[in-house]
Amino acid sequence: MSSEREAAPEIAPRRTVKLILEYDGTDFRGWQRQSEDRTVQQTLEEALAAQLSEKVSVVGAGRTDSGVHAAGQVASFRTTCTIPPEGIAFGTNSRLPRDVAVLSAADVPPDFHAQRSATRKHYRYSILNRRVRSPLAGRTALEVAAPLDDARMVEAAAHLIGRHDYTSFRNAGSVETSPVRTVSRLDITRSGEYLAIDVEGDGFLYKMVRNLVGTLMMVGVGKLTPVEAGWILEQRDRRRAGPAAPAHGLCLVEVSY
Amino acid sequence: MSSEREAAPEIAPRRTVKLILEYDGTDFRGWQRQSEDRTVQQTLEEALAAQLSEKVSVVGAGRTDSGVHAAGQVASFRTTCTIPPEGIAFGTNSRLPRDVAVLSAADVPPDFHAQRSATRKHYRYSILNRRVRSPLAGRTALEVAAPLDDARMVEAAAHLIGRHDYTSFRNAGSVETSPVRTVSRLDITRSGEYLAIDVEGDGFLYKMVRNLVGTLMMVGVGKLTPVEAGWILEQRDRRRAGPAAPAHGLCLVEVSY
Repeated sequence: MSSEREAAPEIAPRRTVKLILEYDGTDFRGWQRQSEDRTVQQTLEEALAAQLSEKVSVVGAGRTDSGVHAAGQVASFRTTCTIPPEGIAFGTNSRLPRDVAVLSAADVPPDFHAQRSATRKHYRYSILNRRVRSPLAGRTALEVAAPLDDARMVEAAAHLIGRHDYTSFRNAGSVETSPVRTVSRLDITRSGEYLAIDVEGDGFLYKMVRNLVGTLMMVGVGKLTPVEAGWILEQRDRRRAGPAAPAHGLCLVEVSY
Repeated sequence: MSSEREAAPEIAPRRTVKLILEYDGTDFRGWQRQSEDRTVQQTLEEALAAQLSEKVSVVGAGRTDSGVHAAGQVASFRTTCTIPPEGIAFGTNSRLPRDVAVLSAADVPPDFHAQRSATRKHYRYSILNRRVRSPLAGRTALEVAAPLDDARMVEAAAHLIGRHDYTSFRNAGSVETSPVRTVSRLDITRSGEYLAIDVEGDGFLYKMVRNLVGTLMMVGVGKLTPVEAGWILEQRDRRRAGPAAPAHGLCLVEVSY
């Protein structure tokens, strides 16, 4: 004889949730969870656990390095909780510290994976090209005292865009198998003292964006010609390229699916 | 009998120096020196004393409140030091903390006075008009969740601009004698989620800019009509206007002489 009381508890079906995140990377040791350090993933997973009353594992679209910011990082996780997406966003935000926020939450198909499903990422590197440091912009822009010739940088960018083997711009520590990537956009825009370098592509090798920016800056100050930037790409040798630009000028702006 | 050795020491003539300053007001208790608190004036005077080997008194163009930022505050002081202006700027900067910087220094006529000689000041109030707080912009922009109707705010601004008695927008604690000021510009510009309110005038009463912004926001959310904003001005009664907008959205952009 069965009764409702004796029936097996209903198993809540697992759902996949996509989050869009903004953070100031200054006080984080990057995205990825590490044993001791304060990271975005760890901070977010703790807030979600409290909000959902369930431990979840979050996947990020880009494993941003220590100090890198995000205006549109995407994260996904699976959960059995039944809180509507708006409630997840609002409730998690109230548990997150000031330097990270969930901009939105949405239910997505079960096979959605923030990193593997991404088709395009947009990063912006910000430079303040002036002699004096900036108390207001210095958290999110690199201060460069030497005048940068942005017309030369635009010329160099034309040599670096496209589908290529980007080994020259990949740092050791990469886990990616193929060094071939498509960079679909590499725009340099000056607005007074402010220089924005917008980079879009289907994916990036380890420190590739900051290495591209580092080489573009060498062109900007006249240490390399635009043609030499193209030659560096062709060499497929990391030692040929300039140093990586510092982390705090970089921001993950948007991820497309 | 006199010798060179016995001659009276030459008195270095006093000169007046003008500084342009940028600061992030977050961690300052405003401009003006106070006994205990960390203020911009006190921080600057200490750095100058060390750099010039002489105690100087600095005058600021605007006595910005606690939390207000500056991209172009102007300060002046008199000194007997003979260091060239570029040396004063560079050397003082190396002694200043990260959140305040001297952008430039220049010799000016002896009667120059950063506050009394100013003919026009430009303030900008920044609003991020969205539901979720912003880790990246929240230091320097006010987050407003309610949709702001900027067309209505532009209409209201037309009633507030001009030469008027601005008593309705002056907080108690004012030291100014006349409440009459000329507001020559009151522009509201939207760029996506971001709203800038640019205010220019020959001078402002205590908390006048933030009080004007507070009333404009009440118009923006529909609590006041544009015509009512003009009526408030005419009343010359502080109790009629909206509350002052928070300090952290305000920035002193430029001072003209």
